[in-house]
Amino acid sequence: MTIQEIKIGDSAVFQKTVTETDIILFAGVSGDLNPAHINEVWAAQSRFKKRIAHGMLTASFVSAVLGMQLPGPGTIYLEQSLRFTAPTYIGDTVEAKVTVAEILVEKNIVKLETTCTNQEGVLLLKGMATVMPPRA
Amino acid sequence: MTIQEIKIGDSAVFQKTVTETDIILFAGVSGDLNPAHINEVWAAQSRFKKRIAHGMLTASFVSAVLGMQLPGPGTIYLEQSLRFTAPTYIGDTVEAKVTVAEILVEKNIVKLETTCTNQEGVLLLKGMATVMPPRA
Amino acid sequence: MTIQEIKIGDSAVFQKTVTETDIILFAGVSGDLNPAHINEVWAAQSRFKKRIAHGMLTASFVSAVLGMQLPGPGTIYLEQSLRFTAPTYIGDTVEAKVTVAEILVEKNIVKLETTCTNQEGVLLLKGMATVMPPRA
Amino acid sequence: MTIQEIKIGDSAVFQKTVTETDIILFAGVSGDLNPAHINEVWAAQSRFKKRIAHGMLTASFVSAVLGMQLPGPGTIYLEQSLRFTAPTYIGDTVEAKVTVAEILVEKNIVKLETTCTNQEGVLLLKGMATVMPPRA
Repeated sequence: MTIQEIKIGDSAVFQKTVTETDIILFAGVSGDLNPAHINEVWAAQSRFKKRIAHGMLTASFVSAVLGMQLPGPGTIYLEQSLRFTAPTYIGDTVEAKVTVAEILVEKNIVKLETTCTNQEGVLLLKGMATVMPPRA
Repeated sequence: MTIQEIKIGDSAVFQKTVTETDIILFAGVSGDLNPAHINEVWAAQSRFKKRIAHGMLTASFVSAVLGMQLPGPGTIYLEQSLRFTAPTYIGDTVEAKVTVAEILVEKNIVKLETTCTNQEGVLLLKGMATVMPPRA
Repeated sequence: MTIQEIKIGDSAVFQKTVTETDIILFAGVSGDLNPAHINEVWAAQSRFKKRIAHGMLTASFVSAVLGMQLPGPGTIYLEQSLRFTAPTYIGDTVEAKVTVAEILVEKNIVKLETTCTNQEGVLLLKGMATVMPPRA
Repeated sequence: MTIQEIKIGDSAVFQKTVTETDIILFAGVSGDLNPAHINEVWAAQSRFKKRIAHGMLTASFVSAVLGMQLPGPGTIYLEQSLRFTAPTYIGDTVEAKVTVAEILVEKNIVKLETTCTNQEGVLLLKGMATVMPPRA
């Protein structure tokens, strides 16, 4: 969608169940082998009691919505702020949602509120994305 | 490292070459099949001329440094801001660097400047991380 | 889309560049370790001169269009015929296209022509899909 | 096997347990992120009650038998028809079986009945393959 087609309040969502496979692959790709993600024994004694997903894995679902739906293919990602508010566990189904908050037509820039919640409605992360939608 | 062991200016780095495999796996895990990442024909006609890595893939290297080195295992990720300044291409070797910028001992919170650069020194992303180091 | 929203001639496409990674992962998942896909030395002396993608990998892009776009989520896949007309090589960008050819409203069944072509317009496969769109 | 070595009624099988990992990898490779495959919450409310494997993943086991056993390496895949008769769930062990049904010696073409069944004998898919065996 071009900036002309986007309106304040427009939103889009993407849902995915986070599996152990996702975490293992993300660990390999990112190099983030933090025991919180890959060591069940260590994780059992941690604050969260079991392995948790990488925060950036949860955040990547926000990127999926921005790049595939709103604004969609051709979007250039400029900025993202992330506040991690609760852990994502294996088996959680995450819903990433983006909502248009601000449109700067002359600069071709759109700002969107971004959230991820789990299947129980717990907020996992929130933040703000700044993107350039594709040009007409 | 606990907050008592951390000093302003401390830094750590992680380097990884981004391969096509990383991008394919990241696409599957994140659900972000944006053509900028998985369609060479589309990408050739885009602003960046070829396929680029997901921004969150580059950002994940920052997470790797925080979770594995500084402060290291046990760190709780609270916040991250990201400004994407240049694309990461297949074959680029990314260096993620974190540098301690602020220490709030009473809250057990550390803020770190975070950057990613490629093998030519081009800045790919910059931002600020807020974390809680592990307790003693 | 429900059957009431679908019209003869409606079409949708999905494009993806086929990488060596895709072929390796597909080989592992499918168990199809045919040397045509995983043995470059063997493939160099074969009819196709180099490694080719699994036919079912190319066919899976058809499934992606049906399940994600037309008719989309909730679609039940009943039948698919496949005629493989040319090989898919590493680096090819495949376009899968589905076009509605027949609508049986009382049975809630839609038939679609399905094709895959490469970046040069070469037909890689053609066939017919029979699906049940999601109900209202 | 060359066409001279193949007889009507010859058969071969391949068995594989379908794991969550297979489905995650197949989703990434195919681009088919249909919620039926990757969203446990969505799937719980669907006709099948839980996540199911991609039909083409089940079908790929047929390709594995053809390309690795009967006729085996060097086989050229010409056609495949597929009728999906029941879903494949995570944890199912699928047996793909091919049985020679017709031999056209002068055209170097063999037709085989192809089926997949699960560990309880439930028919998951059936169809017909048309292949060219390797030449002597």
